Amino acid sequence: MKFVPRSLQALVVEFSRLPGVGERTALRFAVALLKGGNHRAQILQQVLGAVQTDISNCQTCGFWTEQMRCPICEDVQRSDQKLCVVRDSPDVLALEKFRSHAWKYHVLGGLLSPLSGVGPDKLSIAALVSRLRKGGIQELILAFDATVEGDATAYYLKDLLKKEFPQVQLSRTALGLPAGSSVEYLDPSTLESALLHRTPLD
Amino acid sequence: MKFVPRSLQALVVEFSRLPGVGERTALRFAVALLKGGNHRAQILQQVLGAVQTDISNCQTCGFWTEQMRCPICEDVQRSDQKLCVVRDSPDVLALEKFRSHAWKYHVLGGLLSPLSGVGPDKLSIAALVSRLRKGGIQELILAFDATVEGDATAYYLKDLLKKEFPQVQLSRTALGLPAGSSVEYLDPSTLESALLHRTPLD
Repeated sequence: MKFVPRSLQALVVEFSRLPGVGERTALRFAVALLKGGNHRAQILQQVLGAVQTDISNCQTCGFWTEQMRCPICEDVQRSDQKLCVVRDSPDVLALEKFRSHAWKYHVLGGLLSPLSGVGPDKLSIAALVSRLRKGGIQELILAFDATVEGDATAYYLKDLLKKEFPQVQLSRTALGLPAGSSVEYLDPSTLESALLHRTPLD
Repeated sequence: MKFVPRSLQALVVEFSRLPGVGERTALRFAVALLKGGNHRAQILQQVLGAVQTDISNCQTCGFWTEQMRCPICEDVQRSDQKLCVVRDSPDVLALEKFRSHAWKYHVLGGLLSPLSGVGPDKLSIAALVSRLRKGGIQELILAFDATVEGDATAYYLKDLLKKEFPQVQLSRTALGLPAGSSVEYLDPSTLESALLHRTPLD
């Protein structure tokens, strides 16, 4: 980055840490901000500050919130009998994007991954157990990624919870064909699962 | 953006103002910063501050600098006889990317665009004229975009300068086939110009 001022280079480096952003795009972003006048860079600077000070995790479920409890936990329309367990806050956004569900959530803050050094103590599993101990929860829906880490976390939770909470039903999101996909190009494990869990046509 | 905290929404809005960034990508950026911990957002906040305070325009040519004059104007290896006139600072970066040229630059800060309300008074044309009045400049290379605005600015400068500075040669970057392009898919005006300004094969 010849002739790029040092402070602009530092901004390019930070932008290129964002997902899917290379040095070229990062320079474009930095130039756009610089050409937008101090005003644009200043506003971005301010909102970054606000994000750091204002956002914390809901004391009940761990989802993002600017209060003590998140709007989903505060929602009296939602049942306390079903709890959907997810990896992280963006998963809640994805699940609630097109439809409000009847349940509340529990955000683990990650998935078990021995290779990355993520053990059960790094996840919000103790908080999940104490929510279950309070009683009233009938079903735990595990909505994890369809990955090795997702499988590992689901089986770990099953082993952990089935003895203490035999009355709580555990379920996991179905593995099958995503909407719009072609049988021709799908991987064998997805197809096997889609065949195994085939649903009757009524 | 249901359930996205207000301050995070503000960050998404600012990110989606960046070129080529939609709401989805902006949310991905914001989530990546948030998941990176306060540290990442804080560093980005700091470098944004540094960009605003440290970067100004070179008093001679208008290019970005953190000093009074930019490193290109300070470069004693470069000739003062040729001046390359460009729209904006990123154009200097593009022109100097793979090869250091022998000339210095003059950054106009835009191109004439009556439709967007950009007249000659909004560009650094007076500064260009005073550089020419100091004498010594033999050629002015206009390296503008091949657009209506680029054409308009080139012809405006030609009309303005040819009377006062008849000894200064004005030239403009060639219009022709870009490297790697197919004749089949190029627009007629590019092809016409490429044919008109064909170069002898030696």
